[in-house]
This record gives sequence, C-alpha cells and structure tokens, in this order.
Amino acid sequence: MKLHGYFRSGAAYRVRIALNLKGVEVEHVPHHLRKGEQKAEAYLKLNPQGLVPALELDDGTVLTQSLAIIDWLDETHPLPPLVPGTPIEKAKIRGFALAIACDTHPVQNLGVLKKLRALGHSEAEANAWAADVNHDGLASCEILLAGTSGPYCFGAVPTLADVCLVPQMANARRFGVDLTPFPRIVAADAAARAHPAFAAAAPDLQPDAE
Amino acid sequence: MKLHGYFRSGAAYRVRIALNLKGVEVEHVPHHLRKGEQKAEAYLKLNPQGLVPALELDDGTVLTQSLAIIDWLDETHPLPPLVPGTPIEKAKIRGFALAIACDTHPVQNLGVLKKLRALGHSEAEANAWAADVNHDGLASCEILLAGTSGPYCFGAVPTLADVCLVPQMANARRFGVDLTPFPRIVAADAAARAHPAFAAAAPDLQPDAE
Repeated sequence: MKLHGYFRSGAAYRVRIALNLKGVEVEHVPHHLRKGEQKAEAYLKLNPQGLVPALELDDGTVLTQSLAIIDWLDETHPLPPLVPGTPIEKAKIRGFALAIACDTHPVQNLGVLKKLRALGHSEAEANAWAADVNHDGLASCEILLAGTSGPYCFGAVPTLADVCLVPQMANARRFGVDLTPFPRIVAADAAARAHPAFAAAAPDLQPDAE
Repeated sequence: MKLHGYFRSGAAYRVRIALNLKGVEVEHVPHHLRKGEQKAEAYLKLNPQGLVPALELDDGTVLTQSLAIIDWLDETHPLPPLVPGTPIEKAKIRGFALAIACDTHPVQNLGVLKKLRALGHSEAEANAWAADVNHDGLASCEILLAGTSGPYCFGAVPTLADVCLVPQMANARRFGVDLTPFPRIVAADAAARAHPAFAAAAPDLQPDAE
C-alpha cells in the first residue's frame, strides 16, 4: 500500500499514527501542498479531488478522507481497536474526534487561509483566524474530556480521539495558541506523543520534512 | 430520547433522516441558532459545547456530533445498515460523507459566516464565500460518485452518503449555487428526497420552521 501525504498535513499525520498503531507498513509518497503538487496531473489521475491523504491499495483502489481510511484500517486490522468500548463509549470517542475533524481542522487549513488572503487579509490576520479556530476547537475538546481518566483521552489506551488530538495540538502550537487553559488535553497529548506509534509519525521525522 | 436541533441546521437534518430511516421516534427540542438559544444557560448545562444537534438519551447521556450520533444509532439499531457493504464499499460511503461533513459543511456554517462579518465583510461577501464552498465541495462529491449506480449515491438503497448529501444540497440551493454541472448528485438528491424518511425530515416540515 502507498500513503499519499505531506509531512505537515494534519489529516495525513492521523493516518500515519493509525497505521503505526496497527503495525501496518506502507510506502510513503509525499506531495508538497504549499507547492501545489497535489494538483499535478499525475496525482489527479489517482485522486481527482487533489487532496491528501489518499491510501492507494495494492489493487489500485484509492481511499480518501483520513477518518474513512482509519475506519477501513480498523475494520480490516481489528487489533488494537481504535474505537473500543460500549456503543456510548464509542460515540464519545467519535464525538471528540469529529469535534476536531469537522469543527476545527477544516476551518483552519491551507485552503481556508488561502481564501482569506484572496479576500485581502494579511498573513497576520489569516494566522489570527487559524489561532482562534484552534483555540475554540481545543476548548471544546477540553470540555469533552471532563470526567474521563487518563493518561490518554479516554483511558488507558490510545484511541481515535488521541489520533486526532495530537496533530491538532501540533497545529495549535504552530499558530501560537496558549494551551495552558487546557491541562487535560495537554496531558493526553504528551502521553500520546511518548507512545512509539505517535512518535514515529511526527511531521519532523518524515522524509519530506523541511 | 430527545433530539436537540434546529430546523435549518444541516447537521441536525442528517440526524433526523437517520432516525427516520431506522424508524426511531424521538422528542424534538428546537433551539433557535440565529437567536443564540444554543448558548442559553439551561442548554449549556446539557451540552457545554453549545452546539446542535445533541441526542439526549433516556438515562441522561448526551451524545454530540451528527456522525457520531448516527454511528451510535447504526450500532444500536442495525437495520437498515447506513454504511453497508464490504470494507472498501464502506470506506467509499464514509469518504463521501466526510467530504461533506469535514470539507464542506463546517467551512460554510453560521459560525464561519459570523467570523467573516466580524472581519468587516458584507452579507454579500459572506454569502459568496458560502456559495463557493458549497460549489467546490459538491464538485468533489460529483467526482466521488463517478462509476457508481443510482438511484441513490451508492446504489439501490440510501446510505450515510445520502444522509449527508441531501442537507448539503439544501444549503447549496439556499446560497444560490448552480447545480447543473453536477447531474449525478442532483439525481441522487432527488431520489432521496422522494423517500419518506428523507421527506419527513425536511427543514420546512419541522415545528420550528419559519
């Protein structure tokens, strides 16, 4: 299998972590998003949406959307489960992951910042927008973990919640967000980053890192 | 169970459709988003995030995030399955649903348009942003259905893909997006809206519709 990604893409980072947690090795194919390589003709033939990540299976099937890829991985490689527990526990894990994947990440990604610049906003204004979105999204995440136990988001093992949290925290730090109001997610993020599957997926360790 | 929603919320609309497809009856509790009722003290006690939809179970548990609620519903009420098929077929359905739920809906919702107005943009500029986002998101959706058969997004029965498509198409029409370049999703949307479960969930038929 080939994972088409970019070292700094938060969505690709999620898939790298999930692959590592499952012990699944893939070939990594980087596409430089800031240089627009995801819109190159050869890549568009593979994934007409021009987005990363995309997982290219050995039979040529291409799967898109990080959470759909991760659900596929969880179904085809069940251990360890990334969304464990009772139906309600699963819904809490998914609710946390989607608070990041729907309400936070898409509203601060490259495409949105590009649209803001096109409307005449400065780099500082675009970055302030991204910082606000990260702050508000992570404030929700902190609330969603009220009453849960650590060290990870939902207890003793990492789940899809941690898979989504760690890349978003990296973004928040990059945009200069003050994380001190969010001690529970700061602790969960630190615990997860110390886990080998998360550590090996870090952007700075990828071959295309700058 | 109680579904906390708002007639025009696309995310609440998804959950209404899913509940109808499963034949699950709930009490509908509307919160007027444009009047800020989702930030009222009593509601924040229930859902500190101040978002709709939220599904309040009979034991008091509150589930948030439309797709997490729908996955919970699909697990606890398996028939008809909303994400049917092989692991790859499931990943295609989920990929389509997430192209809407992550890449489209959050970038054109009330919160983002409010942020644009706060930056000094006119109502017309905010609406143009929303129309662009809907156009681009639905263009991806049209591509994702290439090679699939109808009448629904992924064949003979409605799935999570249709549950996400119909509310987004309603938004796109509201923002004046020209849908003629997207015949496949226009046809799938029409087929789904003719289905009783989708028809009964339409915003205009809800008790809080204006």
